[in-house]
Amino acid sequence: MRQPSVSPENKGIRECARLVLRYFRDLGCESSLVETSGNPIVYGRCDAGASKTIVVYTMYDTMPAEEKGWKVDPFAGALLEQPPFGRCLVARGASNTKGELRGFLNACESIKATGQKLPVNLLLVAEGEEEVGSPSLPEFVKDHTKELAEADAVFFPACDQEAGGEVGHWLGVKGIVYLELELDGANWDKGPKEFGIHGSLKSVVDNPVWRMVQALATMTGPDGNKVLVKDLFRYAAEPDKDDMMLLERLEKTWTPKREQELKDAYKINSFVNGVTGVEMLKRDMFTPTLNIDGMWGGYTGEGTKTLLPHKVTVKMDVRLVPRMKSEAVLPLIRKHLDSRGFQEIRIRQMECYDWSRTSYKHPAAQAVLKAYREMGVVHCDR
Amino acid sequence: MRQPSVSPENKGIRECARLVLRYFRDLGCESSLVETSGNPIVYGRCDAGASKTIVVYTMYDTMPAEEKGWKVDPFAGALLEQPPFGRCLVARGASNTKGELRGFLNACESIKATGQKLPVNLLLVAEGEEEVGSPSLPEFVKDHTKELAEADAVFFPACDQEAGGEVGHWLGVKGIVYLELELDGANWDKGPKEFGIHGSLKSVVDNPVWRMVQALATMTGPDGNKVLVKDLFRYAAEPDKDDMMLLERLEKTWTPKREQELKDAYKINSFVNGVTGVEMLKRDMFTPTLNIDGMWGGYTGEGTKTLLPHKVTVKMDVRLVPRMKSEAVLPLIRKHLDSRGFQEIRIRQMECYDWSRTSYKHPAAQAVLKAYREMGVVHCDR
Repeated sequence: MRQPSVSPENKGIRECARLVLRYFRDLGCESSLVETSGNPIVYGRCDAGASKTIVVYTMYDTMPAEEKGWKVDPFAGALLEQPPFGRCLVARGASNTKGELRGFLNACESIKATGQKLPVNLLLVAEGEEEVGSPSLPEFVKDHTKELAEADAVFFPACDQEAGGEVGHWLGVKGIVYLELELDGANWDKGPKEFGIHGSLKSVVDNPVWRMVQALATMTGPDGNKVLVKDLFRYAAEPDKDDMMLLERLEKTWTPKREQELKDAYKINSFVNGVTGVEMLKRDMFTPTLNIDGMWGGYTGEGTKTLLPHKVTVKMDVRLVPRMKSEAVLPLIRKHLDSRGFQEIRIRQMECYDWSRTSYKHPAAQAVLKAYREMGVVHCDR
Repeated sequence: MRQPSVSPENKGIRECARLVLRYFRDLGCESSLVETSGNPIVYGRCDAGASKTIVVYTMYDTMPAEEKGWKVDPFAGALLEQPPFGRCLVARGASNTKGELRGFLNACESIKATGQKLPVNLLLVAEGEEEVGSPSLPEFVKDHTKELAEADAVFFPACDQEAGGEVGHWLGVKGIVYLELELDGANWDKGPKEFGIHGSLKSVVDNPVWRMVQALATMTGPDGNKVLVKDLFRYAAEPDKDDMMLLERLEKTWTPKREQELKDAYKINSFVNGVTGVEMLKRDMFTPTLNIDGMWGGYTGEGTKTLLPHKVTVKMDVRLVPRMKSEAVLPLIRKHLDSRGFQEIRIRQMECYDWSRTSYKHPAAQAVLKAYREMGVVHCDR
């Protein structure tokens, strides 16, 4: 954690990659930095002579640490009492996921230090671009398809334990398409082309922020939750029988206390449409979404500068559940906007990956559950 | 201009006020700094023993100079060749309006230096908060109402000359109400209350940016120009007979070349609804507006951070034409939002002043026109 590796700012990436390379080698893995169009991927092969092989996907990059309220220097880190957890490492990357990466290696080293062999062969894949959408990972996978495809499972060590000790085990992840929508006078033929002008000119000059607001507003209902982009969620899978069974089991452990802890952690008073309990969990896990991550245009400072902005930008992400096709997202949003006359809004796809899911019956999932049980942790299937 | 006086940043204000005080005294005016709740107003009384008295309103503050593209240090200034104008002073405040303030004083000093008396008595009022909405000016006016009301006219020396030499003479100014609209989870009971959370939580957490987009979208038509807030523009005066006569005269001098120069200056390709010529001028001068000056919420940096924002802010201004009441604006927008269920959006009024207008027949307006004619400048009434 003391080696910064902030991919959105391209800070310390290569240094951290080399550190991870050393870790992999220390574990006795045949390891190398695999160069890509972007940040290198650290790849380690640990042949334990076992019958099973797992790919351990992990990442060595983090987000920046600009948030207010850090109790420690996030790139120095410290052990702090964090009730109700006890002493915790607090640092950028302590979770999500340099902490888990190092924790996994610690476990492997402990096995070897006690004279045992690793129970499975490992293919360690640590990328340095997770926080910027993993643009180079597909290259790596393509170049190593044969080897990776022979593995029996993929495991991503990532912390997920709640205040009451409950451990979550995720059996899948939504896909994402991250888009940037932009409108400026230069591609609109209306509004100012190069810079914001005095706000009094609104009488005779079009305002791209108003126009973008109108375009966005066509995409959802008044609550911003119901999505009106035709066919965007058309193929979204409903939870199947197994999902419903797992949800029922989850419901038994999903106490009001746990729900309140979740609300407290995120500082939220209520969920969408007032859902609670298993309905909330179901919605969280099985609903595709259209989110505005950020939006800005014009004067954003203190006070009262009057401005007619020349440009407005919106960051937006679509989360995909099974059966949805990531490549369909941009064309459907394009079609939606075009059909309503918003041809002038440009859309740039910045990130795209597909959903994935694993059955809870899969031997790898069962092995993880067994490990949790043996350790005596409360578990809940997800 | 070399004495910065940036009111939005509270930089150099008092120093500049003292400089202006010295200028007023050098002209032989009985002058003082009048303290207010905000920045001081420099007030000078110049009794020339004349029968007429004019209030010269001016300002000693400026905006910051953060724009890119300055050819000189904006707080040092320099004389540059600026075709087609010739050698011009380029500096922050060279226009708008320290340049005009000093220019007016130069004219007065020249009159006195050539042994003549000022033709009118002057009440010089220089405020230091114009660029932040003149919050303290009403105090000053209230405390000096009797004296100010006895003046025959108010004159604001402000440059307005076009590339072809045409001089504009404004006979009024729109009023303004500047509002800030804000929505966050803390006052909504939905969405995150304190900080943005991971974008994947959109499935179960409301997004204030979507909600604000929906609220704003109800205020205008799809083009962002037609305003749908009930009664907001209800009392707006149409141009009267005199206005139409002046517009007709203006049309004769408003050549396509001048219109193109205006477009070039603001880098715009076209005006609202494709209006041109006198229709554009009429719209510019007589139409009230609802403008978004700025809007921001969530992640506004590079790349693809996924975020569910906790807050969104919109800066908005309403421009008022004659007969509109500034105090009605906020309540009407409040009512509009409430009636559509957007009670959770807070509105803060940050600036408010009324429209004003003077007939072109007024002796003061005629005196200005006469001066322009005597100087041989092309003029156009506005």
